[in-house]
Amino acid sequence: MTTLAISGLIRPLLEPQLPSDLDVRWFMTHEEALEAVPDAEIGWFDMYDQDAMVATLRAAENLKWLNSIYAGLDFLPMDVLIDRGITVTNGAGINAITIAEYVVMGMLNIAKDYRAVLRAQERREWLLDSPGKRELAGSKALLLGYGAIGKLVKPRLEAFDVDVTVVRRTPGEGVLTPDQWRDRLGEFDWVILVVPATPETNNMIGADELAAMKSDAVLLNFARGEVVDQPALVSALEAKQIGGAFLDVTTPEPLPGDHELWTLDNAHVSMHLSGRAQDKMFSRSAARFLDNLGNYLRGEPVAPIFDPERGY
Amino acid sequence: MTTLAISGLIRPLLEPQLPSDLDVRWFMTHEEALEAVPDAEIGWFDMYDQDAMVATLRAAENLKWLNSIYAGLDFLPMDVLIDRGITVTNGAGINAITIAEYVVMGMLNIAKDYRAVLRAQERREWLLDSPGKRELAGSKALLLGYGAIGKLVKPRLEAFDVDVTVVRRTPGEGVLTPDQWRDRLGEFDWVILVVPATPETNNMIGADELAAMKSDAVLLNFARGEVVDQPALVSALEAKQIGGAFLDVTTPEPLPGDHELWTLDNAHVSMHLSGRAQDKMFSRSAARFLDNLGNYLRGEPVAPIFDPERGY
Repeated sequence: MTTLAISGLIRPLLEPQLPSDLDVRWFMTHEEALEAVPDAEIGWFDMYDQDAMVATLRAAENLKWLNSIYAGLDFLPMDVLIDRGITVTNGAGINAITIAEYVVMGMLNIAKDYRAVLRAQERREWLLDSPGKRELAGSKALLLGYGAIGKLVKPRLEAFDVDVTVVRRTPGEGVLTPDQWRDRLGEFDWVILVVPATPETNNMIGADELAAMKSDAVLLNFARGEVVDQPALVSALEAKQIGGAFLDVTTPEPLPGDHELWTLDNAHVSMHLSGRAQDKMFSRSAARFLDNLGNYLRGEPVAPIFDPERGY
Repeated sequence: MTTLAISGLIRPLLEPQLPSDLDVRWFMTHEEALEAVPDAEIGWFDMYDQDAMVATLRAAENLKWLNSIYAGLDFLPMDVLIDRGITVTNGAGINAITIAEYVVMGMLNIAKDYRAVLRAQERREWLLDSPGKRELAGSKALLLGYGAIGKLVKPRLEAFDVDVTVVRRTPGEGVLTPDQWRDRLGEFDWVILVVPATPETNNMIGADELAAMKSDAVLLNFARGEVVDQPALVSALEAKQIGGAFLDVTTPEPLPGDHELWTLDNAHVSMHLSGRAQDKMFSRSAARFLDNLGNYLRGEPVAPIFDPERGY
């Protein structure tokens, strides 16, 4: 009988629909997880505490398939996944819709400086002119990353008549390749980061890239804090070298209470909430896992695959 | 020689491109306007003070063509326009792009409760979960009004996979006629008002309509304050009978400092700023006026026409 170790949090959504001939070990605490996983062939043990999740993975010595609700699994030990030949399915795309919506919301809020409108409402002050006067229409966006999120951001922005240039390896119309985009940074009003977290994307936006951006350009980071050289970004924002930043992700997370980013008037900090701004995450993950489980038990492929060699 | 009376505010954008054989009376104050207009055949005298603008119109006894940057001219005396047979061109569409962007911004801000995120940023508090968990994707919107703004809102929302139903006189796929929409109000997550201000649209959303809406539905008013029965709306918001309201327009404007709408946590008040959230309004208006002026002097039609018989 196939053994599964699964977080009890997802139990209400899964149990009624699981095949009967499975040995399912539900757990609620990290200690219970460490007990449940050594026999498991299939595991789904997402934890907010990443260290605990790594320890659980190390204890899962017979694991063949690891599932996760998270898209970014760069915090796991890739060597363990590779050495044990574990198939990994991640949450790529589960949160993509709401993240794409959040990206556009961030751009619109900065374009109209809606934060200043909200503050005026709190003061009960009727503003006579808009504090923000930008339109998305006719502006130019550079979209770094063309995975599940990027593919949803692009058509949404195009509906607003934004001219979207995508960075990807395959050349084409409206595409810049990874060796081309840096020289063209000065052309864009919006630079949107939705790349996976890999050694290659680490610090891909640093002082040089920020200096190359237009003085009113806005950087939006929905990837990982580490994709941006954060001290360089803070300097650029303080010097008003760029127009602003919308940061769904930071280094570290949570951001310490005394960090400059909290108070800069040209920075928005959205606390890695974009993917959580939905109520379908668990039901979508459960439905996808059940699909994959059927495939797995029949010896068919599961998806989407996280490749520990690439890190995404 | 044709005489024009034009506000001096637009002079820098117009004067270099005006035909030379015109008698142009630029004015800066209301007094100067009252002196300039009696001889004018063509007038463009928008004023923030609507009473002053009405008085200026009354004084323009030889006016044949009135131009305005405003789309809504319902505050002018229609009888004067009709009796004197004045051709009126308005600003319909000049602000439509930025207003359509503002509509989507309002929906996204409420969907994600981004106001609560901004407040957390001000407290330097890293939220662990999103205060708003709605997605536009899969939601249903009722779009009341299908003029220049409505026609831009629809494709933007459809790019977010919102199911948009339009209210207009001509039946069709995805259309409800003016006698049909009230019975279907309970189906929609978003009710968006972008109708013109006419006697017919006055108070079109009252206590009955609010009661028919879903308990989490959101009303967005980008038309005129008078389109909504505001006391009924305040009651519905206080009782949490609907999910919320995003009000670009109110009754009156400015909203008095002690009005309940300022402080309701499910109301956004954006102070009629949506159309001003752009920096192209004057250049677009000037370009359109110059086009129309050429047509007018050649005896060709001008556009867009405001019809005082209909009031829009």
